[in-house]
Amino acid sequence: MLETFNPTPRILMGPGPSNVSPRVLGALAKPTIGHLDPQFIKLMDEIKQLLQYAFVTKNEFTIALSAPGSAGMEACIVNLIEPNDKVIVCVNGVFGGRLKENIERVGAQAIVIEDTWGDPVSVGKVEHAFAMHKNVKALVFVHAETSTGACSDAKTLCNIAKQNDAITIVDAVTSLGGSELKVDEWGIDAVYSGSQKCLSCVPGLSPVSFSPKAVEILKSRKTKVPSWFLDQSLVMGYWSGEGKRSYHHTAPINSLYALHESLLMLKNEGLEQAWSRHAQLHQRLKSGLAELGIRFLVNDAHQLPQLNSILIPEGVDDAQVRTHLLNKFNLEIGAGLGQLAGKTWRVGLMGATANEQNVALLLTALKEVLV
Amino acid sequence: MLETFNPTPRILMGPGPSNVSPRVLGALAKPTIGHLDPQFIKLMDEIKQLLQYAFVTKNEFTIALSAPGSAGMEACIVNLIEPNDKVIVCVNGVFGGRLKENIERVGAQAIVIEDTWGDPVSVGKVEHAFAMHKNVKALVFVHAETSTGACSDAKTLCNIAKQNDAITIVDAVTSLGGSELKVDEWGIDAVYSGSQKCLSCVPGLSPVSFSPKAVEILKSRKTKVPSWFLDQSLVMGYWSGEGKRSYHHTAPINSLYALHESLLMLKNEGLEQAWSRHAQLHQRLKSGLAELGIRFLVNDAHQLPQLNSILIPEGVDDAQVRTHLLNKFNLEIGAGLGQLAGKTWRVGLMGATANEQNVALLLTALKEVLV
Repeated sequence: MLETFNPTPRILMGPGPSNVSPRVLGALAKPTIGHLDPQFIKLMDEIKQLLQYAFVTKNEFTIALSAPGSAGMEACIVNLIEPNDKVIVCVNGVFGGRLKENIERVGAQAIVIEDTWGDPVSVGKVEHAFAMHKNVKALVFVHAETSTGACSDAKTLCNIAKQNDAITIVDAVTSLGGSELKVDEWGIDAVYSGSQKCLSCVPGLSPVSFSPKAVEILKSRKTKVPSWFLDQSLVMGYWSGEGKRSYHHTAPINSLYALHESLLMLKNEGLEQAWSRHAQLHQRLKSGLAELGIRFLVNDAHQLPQLNSILIPEGVDDAQVRTHLLNKFNLEIGAGLGQLAGKTWRVGLMGATANEQNVALLLTALKEVLV
Repeated sequence: MLETFNPTPRILMGPGPSNVSPRVLGALAKPTIGHLDPQFIKLMDEIKQLLQYAFVTKNEFTIALSAPGSAGMEACIVNLIEPNDKVIVCVNGVFGGRLKENIERVGAQAIVIEDTWGDPVSVGKVEHAFAMHKNVKALVFVHAETSTGACSDAKTLCNIAKQNDAITIVDAVTSLGGSELKVDEWGIDAVYSGSQKCLSCVPGLSPVSFSPKAVEILKSRKTKVPSWFLDQSLVMGYWSGEGKRSYHHTAPINSLYALHESLLMLKNEGLEQAWSRHAQLHQRLKSGLAELGIRFLVNDAHQLPQLNSILIPEGVDDAQVRTHLLNKFNLEIGAGLGQLAGKTWRVGLMGATANEQNVALLLTALKEVLV
């Protein structure tokens, strides 16, 4: 006989989802209303405004896509890249590889720049790729690699793209709300993120923002966007129509209530204060881990505060430790992904998860398990 | 100053979302856990089992896709249809037209059968189309047209497809849980639905089921699925992996809690009992509307109980009436869609919305507004 699901609560210190606060869960559970209800249209306008704050952008086309971050990634690619376009894509982890896969599935030409997992994207290699290839339409890279914890220099990379008349498409799934990200100042043309990382909202939404130039490229496509669901020229009529909104699909109403609340919390804390909080707690974690003799995959200069890939000590059973942390402490940390499986753990300090209590718990628990 | 969103509750008698019960909203708001947590994997298994019950199928590949019904539609098309495939698609409303659009975007050849909006798909026309065209890969149609309220004879249509060695892809967005739908008995190969209609869950998920034959077609494709996010050969590794599940994307955890609860409620009521309830309340609505002199778009034989398109009486202002119902009674009914805009209203009796109280309210409110 199946019964109502009553999950044992966990402390979520993996690569996302992060812990969702009672306040956001409360917003989530408010009564469902219609997706064309004037009350809901007003909420959408506020979400747009709050996302502009979080992305530090004035981009008019700033929305929450009705699907997870991987759909946000795909939306950026399928709307802005057409078959046979030349695209430079940087691969320094799982998500760079996924971008490459997306670019190839639209029939574009992916010029791949590879870096060691754990390293940031090499600025020199990108400059060299632009020198070797003419008429590159876009530079595509991951700002904060969730699979490694490495942060790439998005500002410099975007500048190189601009000098070469290429647009930029940037994965900010793990950076948004957790560490510095300035869409307009850095000149990012298309950016996507996820609701369940440093925003600490429930999973299932992907904040996306397109610069006016990206919107222009979308509007002047030669071919139709291959995906109807992700066709942002249609989605715009629902999210950005003046006055009357045109129906495209039924928005995930309740998840958007939650996103609104989580963005309000970010705004109340202040974006830069949130970045500092993540940085401070990362330092706490790091000094505590150092005492346990645990090392990081990524070097200090490029280490994201919110996603910490740590090397599993020699002779330690990866799965056994994670299971023990989960069963005894209700504490989830993440496994390594792709080529780092079995080699690293990923400790997330994202959004509501990033507090003193959780860092203290993790350090105590890890000490118990490892010693 | 932006504030926490506190929506005025509405009675949702439009084409969906329907009202979500406090029990489902309570499930939605339970603490978020990880998408690879053993507790969550067990929940996914139960959801699969409950969806099999609702679809009346033994299909192993029965899942809830992490995006709304329109993404479920697209998933069926992009996974099972390849460029240059010949597909018969039936258009008798907005959603048939959307299917055609999806088929054309994958580069397949759409053989379009048109019927008047409000009529069911013509069995004779489908037979004729199969007689005229050889090597048709699939017959694609909408079982319950949400834009008109017409129900098509899915059983007969699937039988014709089978006789012609074609698979069937069926839109059951509005039928699932609200009126008879028997995936295995009728021989449907791929079916998709939405969470926010007769299941009365929050919007944002699309239940999907593929027959073993559909899975075989997916596995033997000549080309890659154009969409990475919707590639069900990858999604299978997360939803159907034996033991260890492989990460594809972060599932919308909390929405799946809600879906589980809404499916439990359907199972507790009993599927056939739910179908009867919708039918009975439709009869109540119909006799009440007859007293007001209001007529239906669809004739009795093909009228869906859960979606009632009624003709706006002469001289009545469409928007004014809907706004009045919303403002005075907090009662939402749907506008006409596409070519029926301004001509019909759509009154939904879906899932938790389908009760005596709501029918009585609507009749009283409409009487006040119209007389």
